Amino acid sequence: MGLSAEELKVGDSYSEVVVEDLTRTQIVQYAGASGDYNPVHSDEKFVTEVAGYPTVFAHGMLTMGMTGRMLTNYVGDGRLTYYGVRFVNQVWPGDTLTARAEVAAFREEDGETLVDLTITTTNQDEKFVLTGNATARVD
Amino acid sequence: MGLSAEELKVGDSYSEVVVEDLTRTQIVQYAGASGDYNPVHSDEKFVTEVAGYPTVFAHGMLTMGMTGRMLTNYVGDGRLTYYGVRFVNQVWPGDTLTARAEVAAFREEDGETLVDLTITTTNQDEKFVLTGNATARVD
Repeated sequence: MGLSAEELKVGDSYSEVVVEDLTRTQIVQYAGASGDYNPVHSDEKFVTEVAGYPTVFAHGMLTMGMTGRMLTNYVGDGRLTYYGVRFVNQVWPGDTLTARAEVAAFREEDGETLVDLTITTTNQDEKFVLTGNATARVD
Repeated sequence: MGLSAEELKVGDSYSEVVVEDLTRTQIVQYAGASGDYNPVHSDEKFVTEVAGYPTVFAHGMLTMGMTGRMLTNYVGDGRLTYYGVRFVNQVWPGDTLTARAEVAAFREEDGETLVDLTITTTNQDEKFVLTGNATARVD
């Protein structure tokens, strides 16, 4: 089940709180799932004493993945054909992130109707952490 | 530690086997980490009897995350500024994926040197599962 072009118009938007109060455990879970065990995401002692950050922080790809969940909730399974993001600011433990997609344009390609979406993910201070674009097939 | 523009030239490439013999468990681990529990990724009975697929398959974002690990291994931590992909083919349990980045161009922006990379991820049958682009800061 996906979106239909008839239900949508340019400027329509959809948003979701994709994580509330992100935990260090969730960041470590992502390390395990992705295989990216860089200590900046899990080793508090290393990251504060050696790398010089205030604390561990999330993988950019975790923010991208959580934002992607909002996207697939919006457009439906197997509909996303393109997804591209800029990593704008760090995501820290305790952050609450809201991901938003806005309909930017419709186009036809190879007999299919595609919708182009503009994406932003913001933290609890209304600061962008990720911006991007996505394309999905619609009915 | 990141790449230096002096060490690189257009056409240089880097590749990694990012997963060997992907397991259903790894797909479920990703579901837990991302919060995307869509049954097409975990419920064999649903996916074969209702959704009509031969078996469960990986989240597109898991392939994107694993390919992203190759990217950060190549360019260094905190260097990736843009990452965009097309989901070209499904990824199934048992797949072995090789992700590859090729230097496409260099440019200057806001006093920083950026490298544009072309990305492909292929399965054991040399079939593309993901194609894309990324940009990273270099020294």
